Amino acid sequence: MSKRILVVGGVAGGASVAARVRRLDEDAEVVMFERGPHVSFSNCALPYHLSGQIEQSDDLVLMNPTIFQTQYNIDARVHSEVVKIDPEKKQIDVKHVQTGEITQEAYDKLVLSPGASPIVPPLPGVDHNHVFTVRNVVDIDRLNKFVQNDTVEEVTVVGGGFIGLEVAENLVHAGKKVTLVEAQNQVMAPFDYDMVQILHKEMSDKGIRLILDDGLASIEEDKLTLQSGTEIPSQAVVMSIGVRPETNLAKDAGLEIGKTGSIKVDHHYLTSDPHIYAVGDAIEVHHKLTHQKTRLALAGPAQRQARAAAGHIYGLPSRNTGVIGSSVVKIFDMNAASTGLNERMLKSLDYDYDVAYVIPSDKVGIMPGANQLHFKLLFEVPSGRILGAQAIGKGNVDKRIDVIATMITMNGTLEDLQETELTYSPVFGTAKDVVNFAALVGLNLLNGRYKQVKVDQVRELVENDAFIIDAREKGAYRMGHLKNAHHIPLSEFRERLDEIPEDRPVYIYCRSGQTSYNMTQALTNMGYENVFNISGSFLGVSYYEYFNDQEQNREPIVTRYNFN
Amino acid sequence: MSKRILVVGGVAGGASVAARVRRLDEDAEVVMFERGPHVSFSNCALPYHLSGQIEQSDDLVLMNPTIFQTQYNIDARVHSEVVKIDPEKKQIDVKHVQTGEITQEAYDKLVLSPGASPIVPPLPGVDHNHVFTVRNVVDIDRLNKFVQNDTVEEVTVVGGGFIGLEVAENLVHAGKKVTLVEAQNQVMAPFDYDMVQILHKEMSDKGIRLILDDGLASIEEDKLTLQSGTEIPSQAVVMSIGVRPETNLAKDAGLEIGKTGSIKVDHHYLTSDPHIYAVGDAIEVHHKLTHQKTRLALAGPAQRQARAAAGHIYGLPSRNTGVIGSSVVKIFDMNAASTGLNERMLKSLDYDYDVAYVIPSDKVGIMPGANQLHFKLLFEVPSGRILGAQAIGKGNVDKRIDVIATMITMNGTLEDLQETELTYSPVFGTAKDVVNFAALVGLNLLNGRYKQVKVDQVRELVENDAFIIDAREKGAYRMGHLKNAHHIPLSEFRERLDEIPEDRPVYIYCRSGQTSYNMTQALTNMGYENVFNISGSFLGVSYYEYFNDQEQNREPIVTRYNFN
Repeated sequence: MSKRILVVGGVAGGASVAARVRRLDEDAEVVMFERGPHVSFSNCALPYHLSGQIEQSDDLVLMNPTIFQTQYNIDARVHSEVVKIDPEKKQIDVKHVQTGEITQEAYDKLVLSPGASPIVPPLPGVDHNHVFTVRNVVDIDRLNKFVQNDTVEEVTVVGGGFIGLEVAENLVHAGKKVTLVEAQNQVMAPFDYDMVQILHKEMSDKGIRLILDDGLASIEEDKLTLQSGTEIPSQAVVMSIGVRPETNLAKDAGLEIGKTGSIKVDHHYLTSDPHIYAVGDAIEVHHKLTHQKTRLALAGPAQRQARAAAGHIYGLPSRNTGVIGSSVVKIFDMNAASTGLNERMLKSLDYDYDVAYVIPSDKVGIMPGANQLHFKLLFEVPSGRILGAQAIGKGNVDKRIDVIATMITMNGTLEDLQETELTYSPVFGTAKDVVNFAALVGLNLLNGRYKQVKVDQVRELVENDAFIIDAREKGAYRMGHLKNAHHIPLSEFRERLDEIPEDRPVYIYCRSGQTSYNMTQALTNMGYENVFNISGSFLGVSYYEYFNDQEQNREPIVTRYNFN
Repeated sequence: MSKRILVVGGVAGGASVAARVRRLDEDAEVVMFERGPHVSFSNCALPYHLSGQIEQSDDLVLMNPTIFQTQYNIDARVHSEVVKIDPEKKQIDVKHVQTGEITQEAYDKLVLSPGASPIVPPLPGVDHNHVFTVRNVVDIDRLNKFVQNDTVEEVTVVGGGFIGLEVAENLVHAGKKVTLVEAQNQVMAPFDYDMVQILHKEMSDKGIRLILDDGLASIEEDKLTLQSGTEIPSQAVVMSIGVRPETNLAKDAGLEIGKTGSIKVDHHYLTSDPHIYAVGDAIEVHHKLTHQKTRLALAGPAQRQARAAAGHIYGLPSRNTGVIGSSVVKIFDMNAASTGLNERMLKSLDYDYDVAYVIPSDKVGIMPGANQLHFKLLFEVPSGRILGAQAIGKGNVDKRIDVIATMITMNGTLEDLQETELTYSPVFGTAKDVVNFAALVGLNLLNGRYKQVKVDQVRELVENDAFIIDAREKGAYRMGHLKNAHHIPLSEFRERLDEIPEDRPVYIYCRSGQTSYNMTQALTNMGYENVFNISGSFLGVSYYEYFNDQEQNREPIVTRYNFN
């Protein structure tokens, strides 16, 4: 007898489960229920409708029920909300959204892919009709039509995650005056505070008013008020502070909920009921590096879960080594990618780790379009196992992070990474790719050949009159340098050793960390015992300080900023 | 007492050795000898001077002797050709190119990085002054000045490797009428014959006259003649048929030469003499996948060799797991990258392997700038170990190949690759990245869930009236299809099963391999025992046939070509 397989939710995970079931079993009856009017739309592409990069909102819909029917023999029912599961009877209640009618559907296996819903805190004014969330095609269509009205000049985006940033950028492209409000002291949680300053600056430079460390208090017709009392004129507000897994259906059915508040599943995405699977943003998953359960609302892992769950219905085992959390975002001219754990997470997990922060050129410097690439590599001490990386720049940062993600998947170490032989042509990169270079720096740190201080320690050094050397040549130094730095170029230091003290620590920087590394090594080899390279060097410190100075209205420690 | 370390050759490998020695030992006396007028230039960027992308040839020189001296305390001597090594006396003879004077220099350790020289076969006319090779800044400067003359309208490039293709493209950008002659039946040996047709077409489309399977016979003032007798008008000829390792110096010194004809080195790049190292294009290296010695003239490996050799002088061990051969090239609008072994190599090594060839979109299809990406993944049977990959398209093919290169470095399998969690945003890729997708296809092949025929078998099928199904919908079919294909769209096949024979093999294709895969699976699940997906599908077959039809003047099996 053929199996009857019901799927709750028709986007990403749900649609993938249904299609995979069909590929495994031509006879199965597959029905997919979706509350909204669309199945299988590109949720990640929604923000790009606001700038017109995706002209028609209809284009966001990848497959319609007719195609599911004719091509896959899948019954995709829209406007159909599953409101109850009866695990005993193996039956669900489906509410037909437009009529209110409720019908029952029996299943052999049920797969939940309900997703997660935007969090809207119960604050005064959040129910105004100029307040929006961005979850689906209907949402983005409504928001887009609203902001196209000329009376909407100012828009505030609340929340600086992926969706918040992408919505903010696309609204700027659409000609709006955009404010972005974030309750934390930084946007984009996957990045560390030092790296994310580059994104803060990019957003400011491109005209976004960025307000950090402040939260929404209330919304009125033509403005909103923050917890600090700051008022922001806004004719439209987009709420993107985060998502909450949709677990009500599962809870009501008595399915086990995990510690994270998401649906608990086993190795094969089976819930606590042996006939109900769950995948996607509503479940908690095993993290390969923390060894803990976590929530991860990303499309790639959802697809893999869908495949594994569908396979398991048919007795196919699948390997589940856990997620690592890889992501990338474009913010105006900057691309920012990350994978694995960042420093905040590593500290909270009490990992013994170290960091290599380098800023080389993303391709051969003389080629048109070459740009600096900020790259931060995190690794375990003493094993050298690679734990995470972050990369920001105008070039192909995603490819470097994908290499690190692959390394993490394979439990790779700095040794492995330094010898990884990547593609090279001056059009695409450098012979010693940034990931190889970062691995070498990491190995030198691990082997104690080299000591460093991090960008967040530099202000203290400057203010305490530490002995800091700017190792760059004259022209670069004149374009800006650290306050009180001693200017001793690499080309002169061997003749000016008498200026470098042996009885106190010496801190060295250049623009990108390579010149200063050479001087650090040379002085160490000469017998200087306390020589430190400034990690991230001038460019990293400049980015780090730039935004902090402005925000905290404090005395700059960088005499001038030269970000080019 | 400080060491005296001499380095022969001041480009790539040589310069890297010298700089690394200095970082390890501030006291060492380091002298680098370079026959030409420049040390440390970007040899990979040379062709880009011809189009003006790199305006000044001086820009190609990255470091001059003064910088080596002041910043690294390295004595870089140009116009200094090392003409003899006396291993007994640990001494070399250096000829000062401009004066002819010869002096002796003693060493503690000697590092050879002489590189490889362009092969110029002894054919009539190759010594004309309108015949060029491209090895260094002097060469490219001379070629550039020559072709800038308006009387030079037609240029022929002999040899279709990296340099040949890049020179040809840049000459087209400079307004020249370019012919490229290649003795093999394809350009770019790292790629298989099926994949490389995309590059053949791109070059033809962009105005290059591409002549394959024909070799140079002789060169005259205003034309050249091929072995076939074909005459090609040319006012300039660039010879780029390959390079020959510079081993004379090593041979004369009695150093052991390997089977490949290159200098033999051990794990740490030590030659047969305990005080002489060798790195770069003149040595033979261990190949991780073939377990044999090979020659590999690439910049990335050379840098790693340099680092290892310099480290070994100071007693530092280094891991040497062998090369895999990763590379990338841009040809007009196409990017082409490869790593590991290709089918030709696998066959010659008698590997049991299989191939997944898929052509998905390189980013979410609705995003501006999305393009198809041809991806070929090679893996071992039955282990699933990944052996190589090739990717060609307008988008970021390099990042996909870098992931595979990392996998090969880590001895990864299809299982590993399918679960690798890569960065995703619709701007950069697809939620199920092409490498994940290819791994899934590979696993299905490995597990016998799915059978395929390769693009090079399709002509035979068509000519023998095999039962071939075009699974695409009407519009796509009308734009072009395989001759004699039965048009049974995925959306109709379940109602038209009576048209599909059960007693003979059925071959299915679509545009990219995904739709046909669904139909292949469905029919197999229905009990059809002999259903095959056509690997590479319509797009792959079209590219494969397109060029062959023209070249071999044969009857097309594709009714029309639709490459978009």
